Amino acid sequence: MQIIRPTLLLDKTKCIKNIKMMLEKAHLYGLDFRPHFKTHRSAEIAEWFRDAGINKCTVSSIEMAKYFAEHGWKDITIAFPVNLLEIENLNQIASEIQINILIDNQEIIQFLEENLTSIVGAFIKIDCGYHRCGIESQNVKAIESIILELNKSNKLNFKGLLTHSGNTYHAESTDEILKIHIDSKIQLIDIKSKLKLNNCIISVGDTPSCSLSESFDGIDEIRPGNFVFYDAMQLILGSCSFEQIAVCLACPVVAMNNDRKEVIIYGGSIHLSKENCKFKDKIIYGLVAELSETGWQLVDNAYVKSLSQEHGVLSIPENYYHQFKIGNTIGIIPVHSCLTVGLLQNYYELQSDKIITAHHDNN
Amino acid sequence: MQIIRPTLLLDKTKCIKNIKMMLEKAHLYGLDFRPHFKTHRSAEIAEWFRDAGINKCTVSSIEMAKYFAEHGWKDITIAFPVNLLEIENLNQIASEIQINILIDNQEIIQFLEENLTSIVGAFIKIDCGYHRCGIESQNVKAIESIILELNKSNKLNFKGLLTHSGNTYHAESTDEILKIHIDSKIQLIDIKSKLKLNNCIISVGDTPSCSLSESFDGIDEIRPGNFVFYDAMQLILGSCSFEQIAVCLACPVVAMNNDRKEVIIYGGSIHLSKENCKFKDKIIYGLVAELSETGWQLVDNAYVKSLSQEHGVLSIPENYYHQFKIGNTIGIIPVHSCLTVGLLQNYYELQSDKIITAHHDNN
Repeated sequence: MQIIRPTLLLDKTKCIKNIKMMLEKAHLYGLDFRPHFKTHRSAEIAEWFRDAGINKCTVSSIEMAKYFAEHGWKDITIAFPVNLLEIENLNQIASEIQINILIDNQEIIQFLEENLTSIVGAFIKIDCGYHRCGIESQNVKAIESIILELNKSNKLNFKGLLTHSGNTYHAESTDEILKIHIDSKIQLIDIKSKLKLNNCIISVGDTPSCSLSESFDGIDEIRPGNFVFYDAMQLILGSCSFEQIAVCLACPVVAMNNDRKEVIIYGGSIHLSKENCKFKDKIIYGLVAELSETGWQLVDNAYVKSLSQEHGVLSIPENYYHQFKIGNTIGIIPVHSCLTVGLLQNYYELQSDKIITAHHDNN
Repeated sequence: MQIIRPTLLLDKTKCIKNIKMMLEKAHLYGLDFRPHFKTHRSAEIAEWFRDAGINKCTVSSIEMAKYFAEHGWKDITIAFPVNLLEIENLNQIASEIQINILIDNQEIIQFLEENLTSIVGAFIKIDCGYHRCGIESQNVKAIESIILELNKSNKLNFKGLLTHSGNTYHAESTDEILKIHIDSKIQLIDIKSKLKLNNCIISVGDTPSCSLSESFDGIDEIRPGNFVFYDAMQLILGSCSFEQIAVCLACPVVAMNNDRKEVIIYGGSIHLSKENCKFKDKIIYGLVAELSETGWQLVDNAYVKSLSQEHGVLSIPENYYHQFKIGNTIGIIPVHSCLTVGLLQNYYELQSDKIITAHHDNN
């Protein structure tokens, strides 16, 4: 395929290596592996997981659960608070496959008890420090009450305790990531022990922890998602090497500014979102990579310095600037691959020279 | 329609008022009105402009030009550097309708002279201080050389000088917006006068300037886009009133945190992008509005404090918090309506109870 517009390149070899790496880690530590599919959102890429022997997954919406259920996935955790307004869709999927949902308050249990038409698995969402959703881990009494309610329920089948330590994404060092992971683990195990829970799955999820930690005793299940592609944010966090990054946005060079040594690409916030992160004390919207027939190589000290709707402005070291030419294409490693996939909706798979489609909830 | 998932509401009455307001301003100052369609990206909404008597437009990609050309628009300016890799598509459209492009260097003229198969209009892109693309306004010599080249060209028909003062989006006050607008205007008129250009359209574009300024002498054409909907950023900049904002994202409430007085909605960066702005010294990702059958009302001091992929976390004043309930829907005024439209791709039009589709370049 000739690339003429911003195109999301996918390196299948790297992607499959990432899947195998995480699966082997799960095997090594005796963990159930329930990868999050919100990163790739593609039935075809999901098949690469299935080929590796994985038969359960995590998603972040009822729509996404429906999509993967339609593509043969029979055991799905919806790792998002139950959206009561979609109860009909939830009932539809739960009548066909094993669905697990998250619970963090009593009112929802009552609503579900009255409105669910099939039995679903229920994880209690615990907040171990991220402070987005969930019951605070210290609030053991509230957790106990919910478990009592679940035990009485005819529709909800208590499965275990689940957390997402999304605060690892804001860590300043890999040590901080490891610390957050251990802290979360201790909090979950502590609840399990205090409440003397026997049949209770301990489920954790974030890519930085799952990539870096070797401490999984007491944990039963991992649910990372981003590791399938990784991205600039994970590279900067230290969760992956550059060689592990499996997606890259190919962008046409459309203008250059010789005075500022800036390169302007066709590639903006409608392709990369406005996600940014700190890199060497600068706010960046992507890293720059040189493209070849078979992949991409990092360009040192080059980055996306700003984005508007269709424009991206690259900051390029002076000694590399002269290699750019209007009409060439350049690679951008997205800060957050999940969002770029959502925006592009199609992958161009390098090795097989074909297009892979991602599901889009909003369509 | 019953709203069960994040849904972009569109108030057609407000939208048409915005169109008429800007058209009347153009008439008042004797300006050509060439609205930017990258905000709404919808052939159906474009018809509302046509109904008001507008017959030319601006777009930001060749794909978008193709889409609107297919829907009967016959005079389109592509306000983005020419992407040489799409020359075939450009030739295709230019053979059918009047296309204007932007030029900011000699090499591109040469390429186009050799590769264009139809005549296109050429605006010289001038950088009046935004520092993204274009020739710096001080560089009159370079501008003159390009005009000489264009005058020799058989394919490129010199139209005028064009700027986009995107720096108004970073202004700290409406006075600063007005100052940037006047500065840009003076720079363009100065070039025109120094080079004794007679047939030379002076074209300016940003929504903040076009909304606020009453100083258009010397300007021939305006190209604002965002004004059709406006958004939280324009409200905070002072470019519009709350009553003028014509889009709002309806989001289900999925969780609440009584300790932090936070409301968690189904509505994240896949709906709102990660665009943010400063509001009363806080970084916000959207403003909160109460929904009714017919529209929305601002909730004072309530805002989106963070976004993850599907989650939004709202900060709500204590006295208003108790009005929230899981399973209700709440309105979010996007920081940047252009990006939300791109992500949602469909509008739910309140008055007629129907769905309007937006074009998506990446599909």
